[in-house]
Amino acid sequence: MPYPDEFEGFMITELGKYKDFKRQSFKPKVFGDNDIDIKIECCGVCGSDVHTVTGGWGDAPTPLCVGHEVVGKAVKVGSKVKDVKVGDRVGVGAQIWSCLKCVQCKNDNENYCPSQVDTYGAPYPKEADPNETLTQGGFSSHIRAHEYFVFPIPDAIPSHLAAPMLCAGLTVWSPLVRAGVGPGKKVAIVGLGGLGHFAVMWANALGAEVTVISHSPNKRDDALKLGAKHFVNSGDKDWAKPLAFTFDFVLNTADMTNKFDLSAYQSILKVGCQFHQVGLPDEPLQGVTPKIFMENGSSMGASHIGSRPECLEMLKLAAEKKLFPMVETIPVSEKGCAEAIERVNKNDVRYRFTLVDYDKAFGS
Amino acid sequence: MPYPDEFEGFMITELGKYKDFKRQSFKPKVFGDNDIDIKIECCGVCGSDVHTVTGGWGDAPTPLCVGHEVVGKAVKVGSKVKDVKVGDRVGVGAQIWSCLKCVQCKNDNENYCPSQVDTYGAPYPKEADPNETLTQGGFSSHIRAHEYFVFPIPDAIPSHLAAPMLCAGLTVWSPLVRAGVGPGKKVAIVGLGGLGHFAVMWANALGAEVTVISHSPNKRDDALKLGAKHFVNSGDKDWAKPLAFTFDFVLNTADMTNKFDLSAYQSILKVGCQFHQVGLPDEPLQGVTPKIFMENGSSMGASHIGSRPECLEMLKLAAEKKLFPMVETIPVSEKGCAEAIERVNKNDVRYRFTLVDYDKAFGS
Repeated sequence: MPYPDEFEGFMITELGKYKDFKRQSFKPKVFGDNDIDIKIECCGVCGSDVHTVTGGWGDAPTPLCVGHEVVGKAVKVGSKVKDVKVGDRVGVGAQIWSCLKCVQCKNDNENYCPSQVDTYGAPYPKEADPNETLTQGGFSSHIRAHEYFVFPIPDAIPSHLAAPMLCAGLTVWSPLVRAGVGPGKKVAIVGLGGLGHFAVMWANALGAEVTVISHSPNKRDDALKLGAKHFVNSGDKDWAKPLAFTFDFVLNTADMTNKFDLSAYQSILKVGCQFHQVGLPDEPLQGVTPKIFMENGSSMGASHIGSRPECLEMLKLAAEKKLFPMVETIPVSEKGCAEAIERVNKNDVRYRFTLVDYDKAFGS
Repeated sequence: MPYPDEFEGFMITELGKYKDFKRQSFKPKVFGDNDIDIKIECCGVCGSDVHTVTGGWGDAPTPLCVGHEVVGKAVKVGSKVKDVKVGDRVGVGAQIWSCLKCVQCKNDNENYCPSQVDTYGAPYPKEADPNETLTQGGFSSHIRAHEYFVFPIPDAIPSHLAAPMLCAGLTVWSPLVRAGVGPGKKVAIVGLGGLGHFAVMWANALGAEVTVISHSPNKRDDALKLGAKHFVNSGDKDWAKPLAFTFDFVLNTADMTNKFDLSAYQSILKVGCQFHQVGLPDEPLQGVTPKIFMENGSSMGASHIGSRPECLEMLKLAAEKKLFPMVETIPVSEKGCAEAIERVNKNDVRYRFTLVDYDKAFGS
């Protein structure tokens, strides 16, 4: 049964067999008045996809279709949908539903709604779908989403470059703007990968002085090209010492934080400032004691993607300033999905993959 | 050799033998133009004193005289001292020196100066004292301190009630005011001990709605008396669940944080808010992962005492509103020091000890 009854996707049938993508069909949630059906044009590949299909983040339901950086065309819109018409180019990120009623939702913090639903691998609550359908991601022909989690893509941004913004881009945009990053601020971005390279672009565009801290000295040129003023090799002995009390914000985009000497990273903050994490390691952090915060009254925090207003603001700035990520494309297929996951897992990507050629795989 | 060549104190000669106080004399630093000699009238007993003499915080030099909540009378003032005259009643807290030149010092963050000197157990840098003398605390006849770390005590506050303010009081005052605690804010104070009971008083006086979280239900009455509106027993199963997304600030004054289920404490914060620690456990924290911050974009931090302006502001408010701690007094002596340390170590104090009767021990 093809669309609209069923969608088709490249899915993992057993957790851990993370290269074993099978083309399968799946049933979407019941179509609601606020829902939009999107025929997918391309989808970014995120570190979360890898952590999920390898089982690194723990259990997940199968068969599972990952992918939460989706761009495509609206092909059906519910009767109550306000801002999207059939034919519009739109995107969906890592969150596909929230209650829109709680204090968090009413406060532009729907990304912290306790009832939030992830774009893949999560069941809808009954109030959203009588069948409590499991969500499935964007390595697929279509996606069905509540309009609040569907973002119009500005014309100036090509689809394959817009896709990675919807999770990676927003995930670093939100903490940067919430931390007040702007002119006069010194910001360190730790790790230059999919998340980090967005963070450098955004922080620079917001007017901050950006330092990249990375253990890969061969990324220096890219860091500077993306807008960093300084590059620090965290493989150097005592790299943190000359940076004591330097930064207004340190954004850690690496996900091997469990292997970090965290006291070094806390020490480079100005008094009262924050070491903020957007990567989620598979293991707990080591050596956390109040002492590592007491030297400068610093803190350690983390965040979860961003809100709709933040996403729209980010897309607007990216379109205006033509700030685009560095993306490699791979045609979507069983093999293409496996290759993308494998290479992200090995950190063999500069700096983000987008799966493309959906028309060829699923028909136009 | 009595004062002014030597001071006398009740000292620990071997770390771990924490009840073995011996009356001994010691040499103070060279008297500087900005220094003030204080004849001590009383001294508070702090959890830090216990962690230090038991060896819980690691190595410390001996013989050691602890005590960093000192109140007494100025008996000698250096030629450059501006605001203190001989005869003034003044106090010294947990910090006795900083460079007063670095960015932190120039920014009212001298409590984060990398050259700061603790009131006891730390060597002066050469620029402060050619002999690089080890500092000794207030279980003693006199103390010598740079004027910047000497605070005039308002007349309205009795000495034995002012003393505990200078470390315990300031240590919780500073994070409360830096977090913007005031009217309309909901604040949780974790632990009702020496620090916690100050925190409840201050947060209430600053206009916040205060909840005390404690595993000692028999402290409920004191919590309410001190100004808390609510009391939560952290021994109750699932105590944190109904408090999800409730607090603008959680101040943890307990020092057994290494035994906490930290995810519960993080979960009670509003989006973007902080779990802040002023207790320093002997062991690292357990189960810290970015995940415990990601649910609400919260953070974990800590701080180290407070600045001079914060101390003066705190003393002013305490004097105006007659906000005094609950204090038990013990006459200073070898036996008295041992009793105080022993009882603080067993948490057998409501809520703070001040050692008194210094005239009887050291002469008037």
